[in-house]
Amino acid sequence: MFTFSTIEWDNSNRRLKILDQLKLPLVLTYLYLSSKEEVWQAIKKMHIRGAPLLGIAAAYGVILGIQESKAKDYLSFSRDLEQVINYLSTARPTAVNLFWALERMKKKAESLKEKPVEEIKSILLEEAHKILQEDKEICFKLGEYTADLLPNSCNVLTHCNAGALATAGIGTALAGVYRAVAQGKKISVYVDETRPILQGARLTAWELTQANIPVTLICDNMAAFLMQQKKIDCVLVGADRIAANGDVANKIGTYNLAVLAKYHQIPFYVIAPTSTIDLSISDGKQIPIEERESAEITEIFNKRIAPANVNAYNPAFDITPSELITAYVTEKGIVKPPFCLA
Amino acid sequence: MFTFSTIEWDNSNRRLKILDQLKLPLVLTYLYLSSKEEVWQAIKKMHIRGAPLLGIAAAYGVILGIQESKAKDYLSFSRDLEQVINYLSTARPTAVNLFWALERMKKKAESLKEKPVEEIKSILLEEAHKILQEDKEICFKLGEYTADLLPNSCNVLTHCNAGALATAGIGTALAGVYRAVAQGKKISVYVDETRPILQGARLTAWELTQANIPVTLICDNMAAFLMQQKKIDCVLVGADRIAANGDVANKIGTYNLAVLAKYHQIPFYVIAPTSTIDLSISDGKQIPIEERESAEITEIFNKRIAPANVNAYNPAFDITPSELITAYVTEKGIVKPPFCLA
Repeated sequence: MFTFSTIEWDNSNRRLKILDQLKLPLVLTYLYLSSKEEVWQAIKKMHIRGAPLLGIAAAYGVILGIQESKAKDYLSFSRDLEQVINYLSTARPTAVNLFWALERMKKKAESLKEKPVEEIKSILLEEAHKILQEDKEICFKLGEYTADLLPNSCNVLTHCNAGALATAGIGTALAGVYRAVAQGKKISVYVDETRPILQGARLTAWELTQANIPVTLICDNMAAFLMQQKKIDCVLVGADRIAANGDVANKIGTYNLAVLAKYHQIPFYVIAPTSTIDLSISDGKQIPIEERESAEITEIFNKRIAPANVNAYNPAFDITPSELITAYVTEKGIVKPPFCLA
Repeated sequence: MFTFSTIEWDNSNRRLKILDQLKLPLVLTYLYLSSKEEVWQAIKKMHIRGAPLLGIAAAYGVILGIQESKAKDYLSFSRDLEQVINYLSTARPTAVNLFWALERMKKKAESLKEKPVEEIKSILLEEAHKILQEDKEICFKLGEYTADLLPNSCNVLTHCNAGALATAGIGTALAGVYRAVAQGKKISVYVDETRPILQGARLTAWELTQANIPVTLICDNMAAFLMQQKKIDCVLVGADRIAANGDVANKIGTYNLAVLAKYHQIPFYVIAPTSTIDLSISDGKQIPIEERESAEITEIFNKRIAPANVNAYNPAFDITPSELITAYVTEKGIVKPPFCLA
């Protein structure tokens, strides 16, 4: 469906190829990552972003990390693996998919402890491929379930980028748009530009344009006015982590939209794979919120927009309490909190 | 109190000196306007902005316009005046202060119709000076009344720029901050950056820094998260036009904050001179909302941030219904809608 690929394993060169999301929409260019350090940097600096995609990148980061391991037996291999996993887990704190993928790789390795190290390495690479492949299938299912919620003709509002660029497939929140359009529904999308990193303006507007879906870009502070004018039929967002009680951590500004949607009686849907649900976290207050550097706000393209030395507060995520969420769409269908192990 | 002056009549050169607000905060520089066309352009392109300041600029624009009039009698002078006023009234549609000042200049001229044209011109210049001087006094009074509403120690949130830079005095919404601080209160200000023109980041953060008041800059989509964390004690905003029923037109994003403040039970104050109240408009739906070019959203500093040809919607103002407003502060004290002639 898309001509780009967000992430790919380059097997002949044993390296990871990622679409450089900091360069979009002006240039479509790829980065090649050959070490765990390069993966860490690419995640930290947001060359690659989007909760599901971070999980996949982390899995391949493990592959690049253990590639360097000279361990001959499982015990020393598992120590090397642990180090790689601990290192990668410090790249970004909020999206749980990163930790989920690292944990899955670790558990897989443990299940293989009787096997020779080289074979473990090779099966772990297959596991990373599996995570990527499953993500594609999950996106498709999210899209089908979400499309069922969309009227035949409707205006959707979305925030940040929870589309194809955030996954290996057709996205989380935007998957429903793609599937609904494929089913013949008439969908038009309003996109919050999503300051400070402008993922909405740079990424979501771009991928929707690529797919020939009507897009209207707005500034984040305009959504309320659009809702007042009855221009928005529903809000679709992704999630970086969902607590057991249903509270959702997602890109800063999501909670803003949820309050507005409630006030204007507009459905507010959170669309995410079940791997985003973190049962170890009972409510949203416990989810760590990444605070990023103030220069992301005070400068745009390295040009100062604010007075020198002005203080800026830059939380990258916020918490939307479950009572503001109309429905949670997962690959298993629509689920309701409190969540528990299936 | 401030070392800058937003607007000044340069009498020896018969021209208007304005602070160029598009250049702040990087450079503090002034523009000299010698014709009504230059005033119109400066308003349209937002070199000068802020509802009260637009009124003052319009009054001096009339002076520059009629300076060119060769009329010898009142009848032909009044035709020239009418033309100047009609022309200036097309610069921007939403802030009523511009129309209010033009109307005041027109009425003043009518009251002088028995006098020689040169004397009328000279009295009209005095009238423009009076509008400027009254604005300073009004700002001070707004500040005193607003300061009474602020606790001894509090965190204020403001949007756009309703400060000294929007007036000839100490501002409208920010006047209360300046007066409260002068009275010894401990006030800290969170400032919405206010996309797309970034008046919060560029202007409000700058003038508060000049006055040594603690400022924290945030993106527009972060306000809800701050309110959830109980970091905001009240919201202070200005107004571009207030309908008779109390509905308020103000910079886009104001309605967003009003909904959020209501949800979080935080007082939401609108601070404006009574000249902002437009009794000819019964409710907010009738206030014309300026829609500006989409390039203000899709480009920052002439650099594209969005894909080529993407559609953007750019309303410059929104309407906050009166039921979301805790109090209206004017130079006559706190007033309640519906408004009527005093």
